[in-house]
Amino acid sequence: MVSDTTFTPHGVVPPLVTPLDDHGDVDRRALERLLAFQLDAGVDGVFVGGSSGEIALLDTAQRRALVEVTAGTVAGAVPVLAGAVDTGTRRVVEHARQAAALGADAVVVTAPFYVAPHPAEVVTHFQHVHAAVDVPVVAYDIPSAVHTRLTPDVIAELAESKTIAALKDSSGDLAAFREVLRRTELPALTGSELLADTALALGAAGLVPGLGNVDPHGYVRLYRAARDGDLAAAKAEQDRLAALFRIVSVAGTTRIGHTAGALGAFKAALAWRGVIDNAATNAPLHPLADDERTTIGRILTIAGLGTVD
Amino acid sequence: MVSDTTFTPHGVVPPLVTPLDDHGDVDRRALERLLAFQLDAGVDGVFVGGSSGEIALLDTAQRRALVEVTAGTVAGAVPVLAGAVDTGTRRVVEHARQAAALGADAVVVTAPFYVAPHPAEVVTHFQHVHAAVDVPVVAYDIPSAVHTRLTPDVIAELAESKTIAALKDSSGDLAAFREVLRRTELPALTGSELLADTALALGAAGLVPGLGNVDPHGYVRLYRAARDGDLAAAKAEQDRLAALFRIVSVAGTTRIGHTAGALGAFKAALAWRGVIDNAATNAPLHPLADDERTTIGRILTIAGLGTVD
Amino acid sequence: MVSDTTFTPHGVVPPLVTPLDDHGDVDRRALERLLAFQLDAGVDGVFVGGSSGEIALLDTAQRRALVEVTAGTVAGAVPVLAGAVDTGTRRVVEHARQAAALGADAVVVTAPFYVAPHPAEVVTHFQHVHAAVDVPVVAYDIPSAVHTRLTPDVIAELAESKTIAALKDSSGDLAAFREVLRRTELPALTGSELLADTALALGAAGLVPGLGNVDPHGYVRLYRAARDGDLAAAKAEQDRLAALFRIVSVAGTTRIGHTAGALGAFKAALAWRGVIDNAATNAPLHPLADDERTTIGRILTIAGLGTVD
Amino acid sequence: MVSDTTFTPHGVVPPLVTPLDDHGDVDRRALERLLAFQLDAGVDGVFVGGSSGEIALLDTAQRRALVEVTAGTVAGAVPVLAGAVDTGTRRVVEHARQAAALGADAVVVTAPFYVAPHPAEVVTHFQHVHAAVDVPVVAYDIPSAVHTRLTPDVIAELAESKTIAALKDSSGDLAAFREVLRRTELPALTGSELLADTALALGAAGLVPGLGNVDPHGYVRLYRAARDGDLAAAKAEQDRLAALFRIVSVAGTTRIGHTAGALGAFKAALAWRGVIDNAATNAPLHPLADDERTTIGRILTIAGLGTVD
Repeated sequence: MVSDTTFTPHGVVPPLVTPLDDHGDVDRRALERLLAFQLDAGVDGVFVGGSSGEIALLDTAQRRALVEVTAGTVAGAVPVLAGAVDTGTRRVVEHARQAAALGADAVVVTAPFYVAPHPAEVVTHFQHVHAAVDVPVVAYDIPSAVHTRLTPDVIAELAESKTIAALKDSSGDLAAFREVLRRTELPALTGSELLADTALALGAAGLVPGLGNVDPHGYVRLYRAARDGDLAAAKAEQDRLAALFRIVSVAGTTRIGHTAGALGAFKAALAWRGVIDNAATNAPLHPLADDERTTIGRILTIAGLGTVD
Repeated sequence: MVSDTTFTPHGVVPPLVTPLDDHGDVDRRALERLLAFQLDAGVDGVFVGGSSGEIALLDTAQRRALVEVTAGTVAGAVPVLAGAVDTGTRRVVEHARQAAALGADAVVVTAPFYVAPHPAEVVTHFQHVHAAVDVPVVAYDIPSAVHTRLTPDVIAELAESKTIAALKDSSGDLAAFREVLRRTELPALTGSELLADTALALGAAGLVPGLGNVDPHGYVRLYRAARDGDLAAAKAEQDRLAALFRIVSVAGTTRIGHTAGALGAFKAALAWRGVIDNAATNAPLHPLADDERTTIGRILTIAGLGTVD
Repeated sequence: MVSDTTFTPHGVVPPLVTPLDDHGDVDRRALERLLAFQLDAGVDGVFVGGSSGEIALLDTAQRRALVEVTAGTVAGAVPVLAGAVDTGTRRVVEHARQAAALGADAVVVTAPFYVAPHPAEVVTHFQHVHAAVDVPVVAYDIPSAVHTRLTPDVIAELAESKTIAALKDSSGDLAAFREVLRRTELPALTGSELLADTALALGAAGLVPGLGNVDPHGYVRLYRAARDGDLAAAKAEQDRLAALFRIVSVAGTTRIGHTAGALGAFKAALAWRGVIDNAATNAPLHPLADDERTTIGRILTIAGLGTVD
Repeated sequence: MVSDTTFTPHGVVPPLVTPLDDHGDVDRRALERLLAFQLDAGVDGVFVGGSSGEIALLDTAQRRALVEVTAGTVAGAVPVLAGAVDTGTRRVVEHARQAAALGADAVVVTAPFYVAPHPAEVVTHFQHVHAAVDVPVVAYDIPSAVHTRLTPDVIAELAESKTIAALKDSSGDLAAFREVLRRTELPALTGSELLADTALALGAAGLVPGLGNVDPHGYVRLYRAARDGDLAAAKAEQDRLAALFRIVSVAGTTRIGHTAGALGAFKAALAWRGVIDNAATNAPLHPLADDERTTIGRILTIAGLGTVD
C-alpha cells in the first residue's frame, strides 16, 4: 500500500480502455498486452476504470477483473490508479474498498452525480471516502460527465485537510487548474490531450490523456521533453498528437453519441495497431462504421503510427 | 410475475423515501410503517428506489433490503415498482434482475448517464434491459438527474415495440408528455406534484409524486376526484397540495443542495407526522437545520396534516 | 392610451411574423393583409415584434415600420402589443417609447440578456421601463432566448407593485405558470402552441401562439370553446393544431438553425395560403428548402387548411 | 481607414469600461482621463463597447458618444476597436457603420444571439457584416453572453475567406484557441485575465483583459516580458494580476448579478485609483456596497497599486 502522504503521481498515467472479448467480458489477454505496450512505452502509472475505461458501463464482474488483472500484471512496476466512480458516497466506498483489496495503489473519485450536491456536500463526500479506505484518494474533476464542478475552493479545502492526494483535471478550464496549482501543493494531472505541454509548463505533475492509449510513446516523449525544459520539442510532439486526436471526431454525433465516437476511436486505433483484438464497447454504445475505422487508420498513418509487433 | 402485456400501472404510486436507522442501514420497521401508512391511504402501487428513495446514494445492501422488505410487506396487495437506476446497460441489468428476484413487479429505468448517448443508443439500452429481465420495464424520464431526455420519438419507438410497459415522466415538459399520450397507448404516470390534476385530465394513467410520501391521502383524493370527473374537487386538492409542496424549498440552496433540501423535507415531514423515526438521509447529503424542520411542521399544520397514530 | 390599471389582454393575441419584401424591408401590403386575415378570424389583439416577429433581427427602420403600419391598420379594433425587446434597460426604454409614440397599446419586455442579472436587477429593469413609458408593460418570460427566468417570485413582486400589467409566458414550465395564476391577479397569456386548452383551463387569460399566424381561426375556435366550457371541443381543436405544429420541425436542425426552421415554417405556410407573398426571413437566417416547403404544404392540407381568398 | 488585409491587432488592447456621469450619460472627461491613463501605460490599442464597456446596456446616444470621444482622444495614436454587438445582422450593420463613421479602426462582432443560429448562419452573419462596412471585422467569441460558440471550424472558414481580420477569444476554451492558432494565420487575442502569459506562449497576438482597465501597466509589462522571451517575468506578473483579479468576486452573486459584480469592481477600482469620478453602472445593474469597495481598495493595495496623479 502506498501511504497517503507520500503518494505523488507524476508523469504519463494513461486512462486505459477496457478491452472486451467476444462475450463482452474483460479480455484478460488483450488487457495484458495493452499494459505491456504501455509499460514498454515508459508510462509512469496506469489509470483503469476512468471515463476512457467505460467505467460507467462496467458491471461488477468487469470492474473486478479489470483491477485484478491490472494489479497482477503491473506487479508494482508503476502505481495503479483505479476509478471508484459512482453516484453516491456509499457506492463509491464499496468500489474503492474493492479496488484497494484487489491491489490498486490509489482510487480516483468524482463529485457525486444524479443528485445535485452543494459544494459543502461534495467536501463531505470526499471526507467519507477518504476515511473509509486505506489508499490515497485522487479527486477527478469531470463536469461534462457529472455536471458538478470541483471548484478551486473545494479542491483547496480537500488538499489542506489532506483528504485527497492528487487531482485529475478534466474540466477543460485551465484557468481554474492554474488556480489550484497556485493555491495548493497538490500533484495535479491534466486529462487534456491538447494542452499537455501547456499544463506541464504551468506546473502540472503529469498527464492522463485518453489518447495515450493509442500513442503512449508520444506522450512520454512530450512529458520528458517538457521535464527537461525543451519546450520546442514538447510543442512539436503536442502538435503531432493534436492531429492524431482527430480520430475522436471521425464518427460525428449524428449517428452515435459522443462517448461512443471517442472511446470507439481509441479502441479501433488500438485494434488497428494490433494491441487489442476487439474494438467492441459495452452496451449501449453503438460501434463505429467500417469507413470510420478506415479513416482512423489513415489518421494513424499520417501521425506516423504503425502496427505494434 | 406480472406479464409484460398486462402490466398497466395506474392511480397513485408514490416514490417512497428510504427510511434509515441510526447506523445508516435501511430501517425495516420504519419502512414497514411507511408502507402500511401508504396502503391505508389507498395507494394503487408503490415505487421504491426512485429519486425520492435516494436511489443514487444506496449501496448494494440497502438496495437489496429495500426491495426485499417492500415486496414482503406489500405481499401482492398492490404492484411494487423498483428502480433499476444506473449509468450503463450491464449495471442496470444487474439491478433489474436482483429486484425481480426479490419480488418487484416491474423495474423503472432511466436513460444511461455519465456517458453522452445518442437517442438510438438510448433505445438500445432499453432493448437490452427488456430482453434481460422477466418483469415489465417502465421508462423513467428525468433529465434533471441524467441530463438526457427520453424524447417522444424514443418513447414512441419503445412503446410500439413493446420494449417498455409504461412511462414515468419527471421531465417537467407537459407538452411532450401530452405528445406521448397522443401518439401511444402507453400508461403514462406523471412525477409532477403540481400538475397532477392537469396530467390526469390529459389522460395520464396515474401519479408518482414525491410529496405523496407525506400526504398520500391527498393524492388519492385528487386521483379519485379526477377519475370521477369532479375537476373542481381535484383542483381544490391540488391547490392544497401545492401549498404543502413549499416544504421542499424551506432549506433553500445556499447551505445544502437541492436534493438534500427536497428529500430531507419529505423525511422530516414523515418524522414530524410520526411515520418514521429518523429523518436522516444518506451521505453526502447534509441534514436540514432545526429551524427548517420547525418551519416544515408549520406548513404541514396549515395544510391540515397532523400526527399519524 | 390604455391606462395601466385597466389593460387586461385576453383571448387570442397572435405574435405576428414580420413580412418582408424583395428588398428586405417590411412589406407593408403583406402586413396589412396579414392583419386583415387575423382580424377577420376574430383575434382579440395582435402582438408585433415578438420572437415570431424576428424582433432580434429587425433594424431600426423595420421596427418603426412594423409598429406604424400595424397601429394604423388595426386602428383601435383590438389592442396592439409591441415588443420592446433588447438587452438592457436604456435600450428597452428607447424601443418602448418609440412603440408607444407610434400607437402601440402596450409594450412587451423580457428580462435583460447578454448580461447575467440577479433577480433583484430584473425587478429593477421592469421598474425603470414602467416608469419611463405611458403604456402598460407586459412581462415576457422566454428563457430559451434570454437565458434568465422570470421566476414566480419576480412576477409576483412586479404584479403586486403594478409594475407590469400582464404576463406572456413562453417558459414551457406550466407548473410555474400555474403558480403565478395562484399567487396573482395578473392576466397571464401562454405562448404555448400545444397546451393552449390546458392553460385556459388553469385560468390563463389568453393565447399568444406563433402558430396562430398560420391558423388564427383554429385558436379562436379553441379559445371560445374553452371560454364556453366545452372542453371536448377545445381539446379536439388542440389536437388538430398539434398536428399542424409539426411544420416547425420539418427543416430539422442539421442544415439551418431552430429559429430559422420555426419562423421560416410560419412564413412558408402563410405564403402557401396566399396571405403573404414572400417567405423570406432576415439575415442571418437561412431559408427553407423547396422540398421542406412542399412538406409544409402537405401538413397544412392534412390539417384542413387551404388558400385564403 | 485601416485596410482589411493589413489590420493586425497585437499587444495589450484593454476592453474599456464606459464611465458615466451623475446623469447616466457618458462622462467625457472621465473617458478622456481613462484613455490618457491607458496610453501612458503603453497599451497597443483600445477596445470600447465590449462586454466590460457595458455594451449591452448602452443606448444609442451613449454608444455614439463613446466611440466619438474615444476616436477623437486617441487620434490615431493606437487603433480603436469598437464593439458592434447586437442580436441580428441588420442591427450589427447599423452599429458597425456608425462606429466606422465615427472613426473606429475596426469593429468587433459576436455570433447572433436571442435567436438560435446554425454554424452556417453564423458564417452568413459575418459575411454580411464584412460586406457592409469598410473597416475590418474582428470576431468576438463569448459564449457566456451569446450562448453560441464560434467553433474553430467557423473561425477557420471566416479566416480563409478573409471575412474577419482577427479573433477576440473569451470562450475560456484554450484548447480551441490553440486549434485556431494552429489552423489559421489570424491574429488572435485572448480575453483571459488569468492565462495571458500562456496564451502569448501559444502564439496569441495580444491581450484584451477587462482587468487591464485597472492595471494596464501590469499587462503591458507582462506582454513585453513574454514578447522578449522572459517567461519567468511574465509568469510573475501574471501571478500578481491573478491576485488582483479577485476584485471581481468580492460582491459574490447572492445580492447582485455576476455582471454587476465584475464591471462594478473594475469601475470601483478605477474610482479608487482616481482615474474616473463615478463608479456607477447602467441600469439595471445594482451598485457594489460600501464594504465591498473597501475590500477592493485593500486588494489593490496588496497588488501594489495606488492613486494615479
